[in-house]
Amino acid sequence: MPRLTKPMLFASPEECEQAFYEALESADLDALADLWLHDDEVCCTHPGAARLVGFPSVRASWASILAGGPLPIRTLARHVFESPTLTVTSLIEEIVVQQGSVRQLVHVLASNAYLKTPAGWKMVMHFGTAAPQGQVVEASQSQGTVH
Amino acid sequence: MPRLTKPMLFASPEECEQAFYEALESADLDALADLWLHDDEVCCTHPGAARLVGFPSVRASWASILAGGPLPIRTLARHVFESPTLTVTSLIEEIVVQQGSVRQLVHVLASNAYLKTPAGWKMVMHFGTAAPQGQVVEASQSQGTVH
Repeated sequence: MPRLTKPMLFASPEECEQAFYEALESADLDALADLWLHDDEVCCTHPGAARLVGFPSVRASWASILAGGPLPIRTLARHVFESPTLTVTSLIEEIVVQQGSVRQLVHVLASNAYLKTPAGWKMVMHFGTAAPQGQVVEASQSQGTVH
Repeated sequence: MPRLTKPMLFASPEECEQAFYEALESADLDALADLWLHDDEVCCTHPGAARLVGFPSVRASWASILAGGPLPIRTLARHVFESPTLTVTSLIEEIVVQQGSVRQLVHVLASNAYLKTPAGWKMVMHFGTAAPQGQVVEASQSQGTVH
């Protein structure tokens, strides 16, 4: 069924990043695909996996992940490197994994990059790696920006 | 002994990235420290380790690594996201590890970010994670740029 909503147009990298985590939380693959730049150069590395390059591979990987259901993520200790047309963030993703009655917190160290295009800000890179256990530091640190 | 050379001033992120890998190959901590932005917001994640934030922590980590000697790295499959004042690269680092007579190739998936400052381009982020064994793909792929 065709989507009835318009493609999203993000006025800032913050909006695009927020939409990224909202799409994961609602397991909305269409929204997720919309916010990535549809380009052969985009890069995505999931924890423990090989790097994927190009939108079709990146989309397929998220389709596979979201087939497992919503992925609610809390972001912590975000640092930002900014320019008028490219932004990079470094943050810690806190993911609640529920297995039966056991609830576990998993932390992923992540970096995202966003590019300003005529269609608004788009995601061009996501890079995640499992944080070493018990070493999630500076989670309470204030957010910072370098630009 | 004070250094007799002038601080480096890089005219492009490519020059800064080249100097980064040259400093690792020559185990030159002073050169490495010079090319990072001396700022509380810079981020560095070594494979398997917690994220480090702020120049003093980042410098200390490289001091510890380079105390083990030179770190020659060949970079492969580099992808670049560019803007006039910020650049992000995604690449595969190939490191030759020699243990006695055994020579092993180790691959690290990495992302680097560079910011243009009045003192030239400076490194503001390095993020590395061990590549999954046997899954170093697209190493022969051509280099690409999105901007």
